[in-house]
Amino acid sequence: MASAPQGSGTQATMALTPYEQLEQEFHRLHAFRGALSLLRWDAAVMMPRGSADVRGEQLAALETEHHALLTTPKVARLLERAEAGASQLEDWPLANLREMRRQRDHAIATPPSLIARLARATARAEVFWVEARKANDFKIFAPHLEEVVTLVRDKAALLGQARGLAPYDALVDAFTPGISTADIDTIFKALSRKLPGLINQAIEVQADRAPIPFTGKFSVPRQRQLSLEVLKAMGFPFDRGRLDESEHPFTEGVPGDIRVTTRFDPVDPFSGLLGAVHETGHAMYDLGLPTKWQDQPVGRDRGLALEESQSLLFEMNICRSRAFVAYLKPLMDKYLQVSGDEWSEPNLYRHLTRVRRSLIRMDADELTYPVHIMLRYELEKRILDGALPIADLPEAWNANLEQRLNTRPTNDVDGCLQDIHWAVGHFGYFPSYALGAVIAGQLNEALRAERPSLDAEIAAGQFGGILEWLRQNVHGVGARLPVQELMKQATGKPLTAAAYLRYLETKYLEAP
Amino acid sequence: MASAPQGSGTQATMALTPYEQLEQEFHRLHAFRGALSLLRWDAAVMMPRGSADVRGEQLAALETEHHALLTTPKVARLLERAEAGASQLEDWPLANLREMRRQRDHAIATPPSLIARLARATARAEVFWVEARKANDFKIFAPHLEEVVTLVRDKAALLGQARGLAPYDALVDAFTPGISTADIDTIFKALSRKLPGLINQAIEVQADRAPIPFTGKFSVPRQRQLSLEVLKAMGFPFDRGRLDESEHPFTEGVPGDIRVTTRFDPVDPFSGLLGAVHETGHAMYDLGLPTKWQDQPVGRDRGLALEESQSLLFEMNICRSRAFVAYLKPLMDKYLQVSGDEWSEPNLYRHLTRVRRSLIRMDADELTYPVHIMLRYELEKRILDGALPIADLPEAWNANLEQRLNTRPTNDVDGCLQDIHWAVGHFGYFPSYALGAVIAGQLNEALRAERPSLDAEIAAGQFGGILEWLRQNVHGVGARLPVQELMKQATGKPLTAAAYLRYLETKYLEAP
Repeated sequence: MASAPQGSGTQATMALTPYEQLEQEFHRLHAFRGALSLLRWDAAVMMPRGSADVRGEQLAALETEHHALLTTPKVARLLERAEAGASQLEDWPLANLREMRRQRDHAIATPPSLIARLARATARAEVFWVEARKANDFKIFAPHLEEVVTLVRDKAALLGQARGLAPYDALVDAFTPGISTADIDTIFKALSRKLPGLINQAIEVQADRAPIPFTGKFSVPRQRQLSLEVLKAMGFPFDRGRLDESEHPFTEGVPGDIRVTTRFDPVDPFSGLLGAVHETGHAMYDLGLPTKWQDQPVGRDRGLALEESQSLLFEMNICRSRAFVAYLKPLMDKYLQVSGDEWSEPNLYRHLTRVRRSLIRMDADELTYPVHIMLRYELEKRILDGALPIADLPEAWNANLEQRLNTRPTNDVDGCLQDIHWAVGHFGYFPSYALGAVIAGQLNEALRAERPSLDAEIAAGQFGGILEWLRQNVHGVGARLPVQELMKQATGKPLTAAAYLRYLETKYLEAP
Repeated sequence: MASAPQGSGTQATMALTPYEQLEQEFHRLHAFRGALSLLRWDAAVMMPRGSADVRGEQLAALETEHHALLTTPKVARLLERAEAGASQLEDWPLANLREMRRQRDHAIATPPSLIARLARATARAEVFWVEARKANDFKIFAPHLEEVVTLVRDKAALLGQARGLAPYDALVDAFTPGISTADIDTIFKALSRKLPGLINQAIEVQADRAPIPFTGKFSVPRQRQLSLEVLKAMGFPFDRGRLDESEHPFTEGVPGDIRVTTRFDPVDPFSGLLGAVHETGHAMYDLGLPTKWQDQPVGRDRGLALEESQSLLFEMNICRSRAFVAYLKPLMDKYLQVSGDEWSEPNLYRHLTRVRRSLIRMDADELTYPVHIMLRYELEKRILDGALPIADLPEAWNANLEQRLNTRPTNDVDGCLQDIHWAVGHFGYFPSYALGAVIAGQLNEALRAERPSLDAEIAAGQFGGILEWLRQNVHGVGARLPVQELMKQATGKPLTAAAYLRYLETKYLEAP
């Protein structure tokens, strides 16, 4: 070294405990995750259309390196040494060590060669999924889905071995740690028992009060201004985050630079706003994660179902309410410059709560949505264990929907070709959508019990109290507790479908 | 592996030659560079203001990893083995191997501890540079510049040892490979002899034809539309690139996803456009690099001076010309919706070629610009070798400018505090600006000799012929040849200041 040393990095490292050295390694991995997230955001929001290949190479290189850094022998040795001394660790570091082990075991269980094969197979399958939709012909997609399924089975088997779980449970666990098929089955059984009747009743109740439709167009810049004002009221930090537009709404980034997107529809004054609110629910969760641990595994969200609970709590429980309509109506008047009976509070609320038997999950309302999820959950388990041959999927799908919702797709685009998830290898992902709604229902009940004035706050556009409660009971917990334990501490009860069903009944069966 | 193998990556690697394995390593490094570039672009164009710390961590993590990948013992071993078998390699792979060695030696010579100390020192120095400018007090900045200089000296010494060059030459070589202080001295001596007289004469010639000033404001969206049309005509590929706005114009990205920025000024109809054109000169160079080698060191640009020659060729030689004004005038009428004598072709041309003795490099015109560079070149060499104490910099600067340009700053903000380069450790960087102009002048002369109809093409907005010539003679060469050799092949002559000076004389001494 030619210049005078100013504190030696090497000596400093030697004085660290194995656990502290692991914290340094995961700090670096956190920075990689943030970079990867930004590359994905850019690809969906800013990137020129012809640059997908270039971006694909960049993502692959960073993902490969992230995987390599996580699976080095050094990390394995440090984990073993830190675990040997785990009795010395406090609560948070101990939970952090557990999450480090989890991440490393997951990474080791999915070797780069399998990841690469899956990446190639899903890239191909996605292309043929698009083609099959264009031609409305499932057969074009079938062989490529078959290939993906074969590889996902391998992955599930390897993950299951590593985590001591059944294969499908291992896939679910990868998305939502600590939730088992048994948990899901119990909850979905309760939903299956209640929902069909509830849907019938709700449709009957709403029969004579169809909302007056909106007419005309609503300028996208004005819709954007309206959304910005609502997001500001919800506390979204625009000095450390952005709202943009993309094909589908999503949230990317890391706390400190969080980016949500939505898609505005010129003839629908709600879809863009509610998309933005949904994603802001995700963003506020991420922003509320424990700051001290934000670069560590224990400082991350507690999986997909809990993430979805936060977006749904905002979009469904909070925003599709009479109280929110009272807050929103003057803003709609102001920004969209609208007037007329269709913009009355009761009519706006009818739009936000209308129940219909849709063929399409993405178009489904709050009440029928879980039905679409339960169909997918049932079918993907049977696909993976081989009970349902790919060729039989279209008929199984259509029959299942007819049985569950009394409506039947007449073509595959409206049936089993509607979602991209399986094409891109996401099996075990769907249940988190419905679990998120169930979790949100139970959190909503506990939150309202503690804050009797909640509706008045919402009507006044005051979301600070809600956030404070969520930060204390959900966000600030990070990944320190399993979902089930978190729910017990937050709501005083284990996770069940009861509160969610009570919420739906009250909301959708109320007198006109 | 649970699934049937589909070609084993490991076996395939074993069959590769050491050189081929190096290509794989550098392919990965290329993806890292692209990701880093996107992170920088986003930081300057899209990132929320409060997210700088988060981005800093991401950049540092990726740069550290890039450095680590480049300096592994594996790469060193492969380089030795590939060099031992170099006689088997063709022209391009051989040049590629040489560039790989160059990159690796540079990386090894600058250890992470020194890079980290420089990063901290320059981050501090930048803050105090801003403070010193606010207070118009060089003393606030001086100790921090001193610290940066100390570290840059270390870096120069280490790089010099590794590359067998004098310390300052090693810094220049890092920015523009193959150019020595001796080359620069020869060229700058020729410029110093001619420019002062030329500047005096030009100012005299222009004395009685000051341009009619523009008045009013020019909408930024319209300026942007105008720039987009000009960039399209120049061949900028908007399906694999973007034009955005930022504090200072820059080019980032990689071929396949290239991103230029500019900054529009509502009262200046030229600065935004010419900024965009300048950056598009860079972009077209990057896009014209040999596609086959685009992920390899030999497929990169041939350093900063040549990069700058491409942006200046477009901005100065091509766009600040009567022919370009003929093309531009109807577009200005159309997009800016302007009329009046100040928008006549002769007046537009006077604006584009006006010579003035400015104190500020960034405000300098084509003719006086190299003077500002030669001042900095002279002073930074004396700072680094210790002949000029930091405390004496302000007076040395002011005296030097007065002697060179017959104008003297009355404060440090207009003097030695005007540029950020030294604060961020960029010593050896400045000469490339003037070298770029000299190279552009020589390329311009050769191009015009081969295409007598060039002005007619420019006036018609046809830039395809220029690009074709540049691709063949400059862009497509990548980093296969040293700058001097590239210039000989492209223009038939070694690089000298002669053509550039002829060009300036013709342009700035022409009869009114």
